[in-house]
Amino acid sequence: MTTPGKLFGVGMGPGDAGYVTLRARAVVLEAGVVAHFAKKGRRGHARTIADAAIGTGRREMALVYPVTTEIAVADPGYGAAITSFYDEAAEAIARELAAGTDVAVLCEGDPFFYGSFMHLWRRLRGRFAVEVVPGVTGMSGCWSRAGVPITWGDDVLTVLPATLAKEDLVRRLGTTDAAVIMKLGRNLRKVRAALIEAGLIERAVFVERGTMDGEIVCPLAEKADDEAPYFAMVLVPGEGRRL
Amino acid sequence: MTTPGKLFGVGMGPGDAGYVTLRARAVVLEAGVVAHFAKKGRRGHARTIADAAIGTGRREMALVYPVTTEIAVADPGYGAAITSFYDEAAEAIARELAAGTDVAVLCEGDPFFYGSFMHLWRRLRGRFAVEVVPGVTGMSGCWSRAGVPITWGDDVLTVLPATLAKEDLVRRLGTTDAAVIMKLGRNLRKVRAALIEAGLIERAVFVERGTMDGEIVCPLAEKADDEAPYFAMVLVPGEGRRL
Repeated sequence: MTTPGKLFGVGMGPGDAGYVTLRARAVVLEAGVVAHFAKKGRRGHARTIADAAIGTGRREMALVYPVTTEIAVADPGYGAAITSFYDEAAEAIARELAAGTDVAVLCEGDPFFYGSFMHLWRRLRGRFAVEVVPGVTGMSGCWSRAGVPITWGDDVLTVLPATLAKEDLVRRLGTTDAAVIMKLGRNLRKVRAALIEAGLIERAVFVERGTMDGEIVCPLAEKADDEAPYFAMVLVPGEGRRL
Repeated sequence: MTTPGKLFGVGMGPGDAGYVTLRARAVVLEAGVVAHFAKKGRRGHARTIADAAIGTGRREMALVYPVTTEIAVADPGYGAAITSFYDEAAEAIARELAAGTDVAVLCEGDPFFYGSFMHLWRRLRGRFAVEVVPGVTGMSGCWSRAGVPITWGDDVLTVLPATLAKEDLVRRLGTTDAAVIMKLGRNLRKVRAALIEAGLIERAVFVERGTMDGEIVCPLAEKADDEAPYFAMVLVPGEGRRL
């Protein structure tokens, strides 16, 4: 009887190939199949980061999203399409695992921090052995490159999806010491308004493509437009105890 | 004239030597002096993680805290002692940098996330070139090993120092989707009480020495005592959108 393969969720870090861990590199080098999420016609960030670690003749499995992440999640068509997609992706991986092949799923940042991998993990963890390799998060990459220590002393940090309602953002920004606002995309105008209302616009730093080619870091107050890709973020550093 | 050296704040990750990044390893291997924080008579975690990367005959600089981190920070003696310590540590590093030597300061987790390095960075960044190498945070290591995805969909994550007052913990736990409670040490009894009051005790996972030898993971409700080292933490995973 074939010994089943092992499923790996591999954190590939924020973008810079130097921020891949030793364990992540070893797993990607040794897995029989390397799987990665992608939008139609495009390679995902995680796959690009892995370039240096993936040799020739490796088997790859592209998990191509059926819909863009920019569709409103409330759209009833979205939930059904994306659920079927994860079901099918999990079964494709399960077939490899059942045949005795190790499968490494490449993840941007850290697999268990807002990761697509979690939806595969949830479907497969009862059936196969799993190892999750933590990664440097996108936010760590961004605050390191921005030169912005995020939390000092007893600072409370709140991580906020930019998809929240403006009033919710204002309320939460008003009761935290430090904040990271993720998933900006089309939400930057709203986020800017929330930061102004919370009196925090002067402390906010905008980071786009953090640690990658074309990285942009600037005070949000100096950014002229409200254009931002999905993976851009805003940092509001804490001002806790300086020793 | 001597070209000054460069200061590196190097994130060494949560403990497992495999979770060191390629960039961190390269910097530690090449720096002329490797500096690390330590308590009297003990090696710091970050120095231990670096063992594999530090060859023979390297110059090391131990930055030994004058007081334990367990002293109440409100104690007036604490502030003065620790401020002098950081002043002197920064000057010792500045002498090496001025002499043209690169200095790598080893940091547990990520340098800019509650890091001691930030106090050196603040003193030296105007005078010398600095590179911050982000690392896998202790919390990423803990939730990966615990098998606990921390945030799903639009979950809000709040990172709380266990040093906060119980009422403050209860209020913040009641308004977040997911939480990480850090710096447990002597605060576990209070944290447990806060989690019970917030109705979250059944979801709380205790992790001690995450990713290191002697790692302990258990539901907090099943942990019989309230003993915990400073670096233990409690995870309250989010329950956001499953697709």
